[in-house]
Amino acid sequence: MTPTVRFDADRARRIGLPEAVFCAGKTAEQIAIAAEAGRTAHGRCLLTRLDTAMLAALPSGLRTALDHDPLSRTAVLGDWPAVRDEGSVAVVTGGTADLPVAGEVARTLRFAGCAATVFADVGVAGLWRLLEIQERLAAFPVVILVAGMEGALFTVAGGLLPGLLIAVPTAVGYGIATGGHTALNAALASCAPGLLVTNIDNGYGAACAALRALAL
Amino acid sequence: MTPTVRFDADRARRIGLPEAVFCAGKTAEQIAIAAEAGRTAHGRCLLTRLDTAMLAALPSGLRTALDHDPLSRTAVLGDWPAVRDEGSVAVVTGGTADLPVAGEVARTLRFAGCAATVFADVGVAGLWRLLEIQERLAAFPVVILVAGMEGALFTVAGGLLPGLLIAVPTAVGYGIATGGHTALNAALASCAPGLLVTNIDNGYGAACAALRALAL
Amino acid sequence: MTPTVRFDADRARRIGLPEAVFCAGKTAEQIAIAAEAGRTAHGRCLLTRLDTAMLAALPSGLRTALDHDPLSRTAVLGDWPAVRDEGSVAVVTGGTADLPVAGEVARTLRFAGCAATVFADVGVAGLWRLLEIQERLAAFPVVILVAGMEGALFTVAGGLLPGLLIAVPTAVGYGIATGGHTALNAALASCAPGLLVTNIDNGYGAACAALRALAL
Amino acid sequence: MTPTVRFDADRARRIGLPEAVFCAGKTAEQIAIAAEAGRTAHGRCLLTRLDTAMLAALPSGLRTALDHDPLSRTAVLGDWPAVRDEGSVAVVTGGTADLPVAGEVARTLRFAGCAATVFADVGVAGLWRLLEIQERLAAFPVVILVAGMEGALFTVAGGLLPGLLIAVPTAVGYGIATGGHTALNAALASCAPGLLVTNIDNGYGAACAALRALAL
Amino acid sequence: MTPTVRFDADRARRIGLPEAVFCAGKTAEQIAIAAEAGRTAHGRCLLTRLDTAMLAALPSGLRTALDHDPLSRTAVLGDWPAVRDEGSVAVVTGGTADLPVAGEVARTLRFAGCAATVFADVGVAGLWRLLEIQERLAAFPVVILVAGMEGALFTVAGGLLPGLLIAVPTAVGYGIATGGHTALNAALASCAPGLLVTNIDNGYGAACAALRALAL
Amino acid sequence: MTPTVRFDADRARRIGLPEAVFCAGKTAEQIAIAAEAGRTAHGRCLLTRLDTAMLAALPSGLRTALDHDPLSRTAVLGDWPAVRDEGSVAVVTGGTADLPVAGEVARTLRFAGCAATVFADVGVAGLWRLLEIQERLAAFPVVILVAGMEGALFTVAGGLLPGLLIAVPTAVGYGIATGGHTALNAALASCAPGLLVTNIDNGYGAACAALRALAL
Amino acid sequence: MTPTVRFDADRARRIGLPEAVFCAGKTAEQIAIAAEAGRTAHGRCLLTRLDTAMLAALPSGLRTALDHDPLSRTAVLGDWPAVRDEGSVAVVTGGTADLPVAGEVARTLRFAGCAATVFADVGVAGLWRLLEIQERLAAFPVVILVAGMEGALFTVAGGLLPGLLIAVPTAVGYGIATGGHTALNAALASCAPGLLVTNIDNGYGAACAALRALAL
Amino acid sequence: MTPTVRFDADRARRIGLPEAVFCAGKTAEQIAIAAEAGRTAHGRCLLTRLDTAMLAALPSGLRTALDHDPLSRTAVLGDWPAVRDEGSVAVVTGGTADLPVAGEVARTLRFAGCAATVFADVGVAGLWRLLEIQERLAAFPVVILVAGMEGALFTVAGGLLPGLLIAVPTAVGYGIATGGHTALNAALASCAPGLLVTNIDNGYGAACAALRALAL
Ligand SMILES: Nc1ncnc2c1ncn2[C@@H]1O[C@H](COP(=O)(O)O)[C@@H](O)[C@H]1O
Ligand SMILES: Nc1ncnc2c1ncn2[C@@H]1O[C@H](COP(=O)(O)O)[C@@H](O)[C@H]1O
Ligand SMILES: Nc1ncnc2c1ncn2[C@@H]1O[C@H](COP(=O)(O)O)[C@@H](O)[C@H]1O
Ligand SMILES: Nc1ncnc2c1ncn2[C@@H]1O[C@H](COP(=O)(O)O)[C@@H](O)[C@H]1O
Ligand SMILES: [Mg+2]
Ligand SMILES: [Mg+2]
Ligand SMILES: [Mg+2]
Ligand SMILES: [Mg+2]
Ligand SMILES: [Mg+2]
Ligand SMILES: [Mg+2]
Ligand SMILES: [Mg+2]
Ligand SMILES: [Mg+2]
Repeated sequence: MTPTVRFDADRARRIGLPEAVFCAGKTAEQIAIAAEAGRTAHGRCLLTRLDTAMLAALPSGLRTALDHDPLSRTAVLGDWPAVRDEGSVAVVTGGTADLPVAGEVARTLRFAGCAATVFADVGVAGLWRLLEIQERLAAFPVVILVAGMEGALFTVAGGLLPGLLIAVPTAVGYGIATGGHTALNAALASCAPGLLVTNIDNGYGAACAALRALAL
Repeated sequence: MTPTVRFDADRARRIGLPEAVFCAGKTAEQIAIAAEAGRTAHGRCLLTRLDTAMLAALPSGLRTALDHDPLSRTAVLGDWPAVRDEGSVAVVTGGTADLPVAGEVARTLRFAGCAATVFADVGVAGLWRLLEIQERLAAFPVVILVAGMEGALFTVAGGLLPGLLIAVPTAVGYGIATGGHTALNAALASCAPGLLVTNIDNGYGAACAALRALAL
Repeated sequence: MTPTVRFDADRARRIGLPEAVFCAGKTAEQIAIAAEAGRTAHGRCLLTRLDTAMLAALPSGLRTALDHDPLSRTAVLGDWPAVRDEGSVAVVTGGTADLPVAGEVARTLRFAGCAATVFADVGVAGLWRLLEIQERLAAFPVVILVAGMEGALFTVAGGLLPGLLIAVPTAVGYGIATGGHTALNAALASCAPGLLVTNIDNGYGAACAALRALAL
Repeated sequence: MTPTVRFDADRARRIGLPEAVFCAGKTAEQIAIAAEAGRTAHGRCLLTRLDTAMLAALPSGLRTALDHDPLSRTAVLGDWPAVRDEGSVAVVTGGTADLPVAGEVARTLRFAGCAATVFADVGVAGLWRLLEIQERLAAFPVVILVAGMEGALFTVAGGLLPGLLIAVPTAVGYGIATGGHTALNAALASCAPGLLVTNIDNGYGAACAALRALAL
Repeated sequence: MTPTVRFDADRARRIGLPEAVFCAGKTAEQIAIAAEAGRTAHGRCLLTRLDTAMLAALPSGLRTALDHDPLSRTAVLGDWPAVRDEGSVAVVTGGTADLPVAGEVARTLRFAGCAATVFADVGVAGLWRLLEIQERLAAFPVVILVAGMEGALFTVAGGLLPGLLIAVPTAVGYGIATGGHTALNAALASCAPGLLVTNIDNGYGAACAALRALAL
Repeated sequence: MTPTVRFDADRARRIGLPEAVFCAGKTAEQIAIAAEAGRTAHGRCLLTRLDTAMLAALPSGLRTALDHDPLSRTAVLGDWPAVRDEGSVAVVTGGTADLPVAGEVARTLRFAGCAATVFADVGVAGLWRLLEIQERLAAFPVVILVAGMEGALFTVAGGLLPGLLIAVPTAVGYGIATGGHTALNAALASCAPGLLVTNIDNGYGAACAALRALAL
Repeated sequence: MTPTVRFDADRARRIGLPEAVFCAGKTAEQIAIAAEAGRTAHGRCLLTRLDTAMLAALPSGLRTALDHDPLSRTAVLGDWPAVRDEGSVAVVTGGTADLPVAGEVARTLRFAGCAATVFADVGVAGLWRLLEIQERLAAFPVVILVAGMEGALFTVAGGLLPGLLIAVPTAVGYGIATGGHTALNAALASCAPGLLVTNIDNGYGAACAALRALAL
Repeated sequence: MTPTVRFDADRARRIGLPEAVFCAGKTAEQIAIAAEAGRTAHGRCLLTRLDTAMLAALPSGLRTALDHDPLSRTAVLGDWPAVRDEGSVAVVTGGTADLPVAGEVARTLRFAGCAATVFADVGVAGLWRLLEIQERLAAFPVVILVAGMEGALFTVAGGLLPGLLIAVPTAVGYGIATGGHTALNAALASCAPGLLVTNIDNGYGAACAALRALAL
């Protein structure tokens, strides 16, 4: 058999974004191989979907070398880069329970040198919370919207803000909202023009898209 | 075989609402029998889902006796009752294409003596259109919200208005919104408290619910 | 980052209902912040979806201050208000297993000063159980129907009772009924006129809707 | 290529039911071959799903030899058998629009010598219509229930009647009820014990099942 | 509040089948109340979906009085009745993993005095296993087919056997077969005439239907 | 804009199969360009999903040059190749209505010089029809099974035949079988080992797969 | 009733994009009112989803004033603006049948002064077609990918190109691909980092998103 | 009751493949009976879906006699056969997390004497990984593709390779990709000609199909 992990070290050259290690479904050994390959290629490596149980199972050398955040389940091997951008990206969440996904967005951006501003819990059932920050948000070239349940935030923000808007539906909710499909479909069907959408809970992807747009 | 149409003439006594004739799937002859039974029992009869093709196929005596509205596909046999209520119900639509369903709401209410006010095309992609009428809407004990696509109107109105709120999702939209399921699910999953929901395009049911609440 | 919890203290003024704290997906610390904000704003606060595991994880000061009910997973911080209404709302369940959701309805109503009467286990497979209480139920301006499986109770009650009817489908059932979608769809498709529907297991929302209708 | 139609002439010996010709998707020529094969084998042949357009396209000799019923889209080639059974099967419909499917049930039974009694339009939104005939229905060993929309009739009848109960969901309804899936799922999830179910609109299958039970 | 359990003691009179206690979703106390009500009414009571964890949580007096079978998760309170019927019902399973559901069928039948014969693991991937018993099966007036995965057994048996055929799809399988929906749909769509279907894993319902057909 | 049609003339070299022209969704002009490109590259070109309405809309020079078959909606531009293979592929259909898809299989194979044998209407509701040809079918290295409704044929054949088996589900059926998803899922979930599956109605793909296996 | 069309003339100020008129579901009169409102507000107006049947039904003054394109179903009222941008956006289609949606993209962009380059029919089944233009595509800051069926183009382009990537799934395909859901889900689930997605067939939305990113 | 396990010992004669024991859903005792029956019939037996928890529950004699692989959850009772084939089958995975399924493929093939070559983690987001091995893969008569998420690998490989191609979608992914349905649908809808598909995670079936094609 050929090697079980083939790190795409060339990716950063092609698309401007290094491969990150998606830990779900990998064994501890495979995660270690991939993370080391990332560090070798780029000096640092981002790991996503690394929960505390798997963190505990990693080889201790790797485990202690990681800067791990349990809420967003992300970790960084190697040093963080300096901040190169500070005012380009806002991350807005509909509810408090969307913060783990918002954390994946913010940490992925920060890994690329982009410091985002997070505005939490501004769901449109209390519209004033969004209107209060409308002017500030309108100044950001990229706004990432993170929301579950019925995802009405996506459309309201889409009608108020001029920048590039990225909707990240989350699996927050119950009954018909279970798994995030209602929020996803609401984002896709939005009557606000020019809203773009990622997979449910894909904070990593939203951050990558922002970096593509900003060409950071 | 027993008769093919058994009109529920006792319904008005039990629940306060007479049976209406749902025309889809019935033959012209069956519609005629049902409508006459309704007029016999209550002096008048409401017909729903009566499109112009079926209207043309009805016995001419019945056809000419009907007050038919092609947009809402409703018709009334017999005289309209006097208006007994004028300020209790508002009907709000997200887009222009939701007007056929809003018409079914308004005509069903009017058939019960309730004159509703319709506010059309106030979707939240242009939020000012809703905010402009917020104060007026807040004065209605019942507000019926009619919207398709992603149905964000339901949640925004739900966070702004105090009355009984009834969401009627419509089959307006395409792609993931086809058939109205996205709007329906968004209404059900709404994070605005106390929003109630009907089947897709069920303007008749929303009007009946308003009448139940108002006990008109 | 802005604060992680932004309590909508203005909501009661706008819509007549204070924000409640939905605990699922929040950390213990976030629940504590939100509950305190609710008590500060309104003198009391309702918490929903608070299971015994999370209850045990709350700061002990908060935990002991809560009046928690494990079946309905609701808790109240602060004193209960006096009862202002006693005969307006009935809660009817199809089966015994629907009682947790019925409890969420009743406790939410009681938190607003409305004492509801619960009629349990009157599913229509044994129709006499419903017919026996038909007259009593007909006297309530609002009847909340809580049922899972195939949800036939919704339609039968809808054809017998005159008040405002709110169907709460529950996730009780297996096979095709798993998750509550069959009961939900049956409620939405009901041929009883004027039945309104909430999300699966949304006892809180049904109670809020009743309060909107009663303007308590 | 081998022949395009292979009539299963042996089926009646094995299972007690002759093959019928399902016309949807067949060419006029294939229908003619199959119908003749049926008449050759059994002296008569039942055709289902034969709409008036296809009837008009059949070879004129066959067309004029058929006893065709446009509502149920069934036809018989050859003579009808004598009636051998009259009190065994009742067919009950929820609404008037379910009559085409009820017709497929009744004509299939009649083709086997079984004369069924049809009770139309007794949906449970007007419960008295079912209770009025409860005693009569309780005398039938087999009751076939035909209903669309939310299918509540299935469960109510299931809790009142002792015989073998066969639910035939129909594609009558709109919105969430489109295509008949809500009625189907309600029949399957019914809390009435011992209800059996066929595919949506499968009146033919329900009749065959009754014949299996009665071993006519 | 009215009582939380309302046993339908009249059911046996109406439909010939006593109410059984469906334990999933009930508390230990509610199960105990219901089971006692059943024994009081009928001298014995059947409990279904009673897993070993809940069995252990029951009041010890009840627990030791039960005849519990862990595979089928059924239990009987009170004495079993004498066998009144022995040759009427066959139960056939596609695979070994379908035996828990087949056990629910057989124990429910036995509780009504009907001793069924179980033929296990005769799936049509090895067709000889079914053909070998075809003649024996053809002698049973009722054959209950229990199968998961793709449910091909339903159709093959349906084309070979003359009696009343009841298909019970099971949640056995993975991928597209997860949850039993593929087997369910295959049973419903079967081209074998007169096959009837229950909800996924509903062995209890299939047994009740057999009892209705046999009027035991 | 670059050209609207880019024929993949290199495909035959890479994978051994020339590009065919899928006509659905193309304009008459685009079909003409693609078909000519195919003839230029390979001397002949296969067109699929070409219905009679589009055939009539083609430029008359092309139209008269085509050998078109309305049932399978396929056409060939240029001369048919000589037959190079005659005993390798059998095509088996469950019902008569599956013949259009079987025709797409057979014509695609024939276009590659492979003459297949078609066995029509051998569905397992009449099992003898399949058993009668079992021995003949067992001699084919590749058997393509074409069936709709519940697709039980796939599994029965899968347990009887040794060759490469390719299941082509068809959109034949109604109710739960509408669109072919039930047959598709049954093929995928089959407990017969080693059955492979194509998209619904994809006769072209099944033929290509057979050619890949035979390396014709 | 308030007016049936409320044009959001303020939208351009808020978000930088004028409201376009979505014609599906509107009457001819409503389209005329909306289009005139757009021209009044902005000097020109874009109409989408305007098919030839509705075009013919428009008031003749409006009809002749429109620059209508039947393939993309778009029209412009008023003069086109000058081109302000030429090298920023590429539009790539997987197949020829995706051109109507690509046309909606290109015409919406052109309406905002942005001339896009369209690369048609470069699906990855013939990978060389994409690799051949890889270098040219890599020079565009925004690439809009339009594809149906299985949507593999999205991921391959996503791994090769550095700019902002917008996937527009189309309803091109049959069987499991019907309606475009398979392409949509493939775009959402893509393992290429930073791919963003619109609703099925939403060329208008993709163009608006590009304009947001370019802030044209 | 007849025996609970009926091993299909004749299967190898009919179709060339012995029955394997699918352990999910079987009790330890049933697994033991089946495995012994397999060894008795064929000298060896393959067990699939045997996780470590069930392995631990097996009778110790059997447990120690098994050659068990935890990653692929397969075990062999009896001696492995000699290798009879080495260059016929390649197994290619999109990601590292697909290796458990690839292991089920490889171990099933090896059990039949066929040694496959596994190429891991060559997903098309880093296209060079596949292009690098294109030539080697083109030499295999059978290539089995194992991938989750959006399954783009299937189509890219399908356009580059000439052999028989078998797609095995895996349940690797999250959000819209949960459970493997997106990868499955992408495989079925692929525009690469002649791709064949198995159920999600069905490595066993893919290996059996390869053996059918190779007639090993
Ligand atoms: N949280 C995430 N969500 C989606 N994709 C991710 C995430 N983290 C990493 N990825 C990407 O997903 C791919 C996973 O590939 P592999 O690690 O080979 O399974 C890599 O190309 C990563 O760049
Ligand atoms: N547009 C509508 N939507 C839903 N239900 C309706 C509508 N119009 C009438 N109904 C009710 O639906 C039932 C139709 O029953 P039937 O006429 O017997 O088929 C009647 O009880 C009507 O009151
Ligand atoms: N082809 C299109 N797809 C999606 N949205 C559109 C399209 N064309 C216009 N829109 C937007 O959809 C909304 C339709 O609202 P209305 O015209 O009020 O129904 C407007 O805000 C438009 O900007
Ligand atoms: N991993 C697997 N996936 C699909 N089918 C399998 C697998 N392992 C074994 N099988 C087959 O599935 C059938 C299982 O039947 P049973 O053991 O009777 O439940 C047998 O015919 C096996 O050959
Ligand atoms: Mg909040
Ligand atoms: Mg509008
Ligand atoms: Mg009960
Ligand atoms: Mg009626
Ligand atoms: Mg077995
Ligand atoms: Mg046939
Ligand atoms: Mg092409
Ligand atoms: Mg990888």
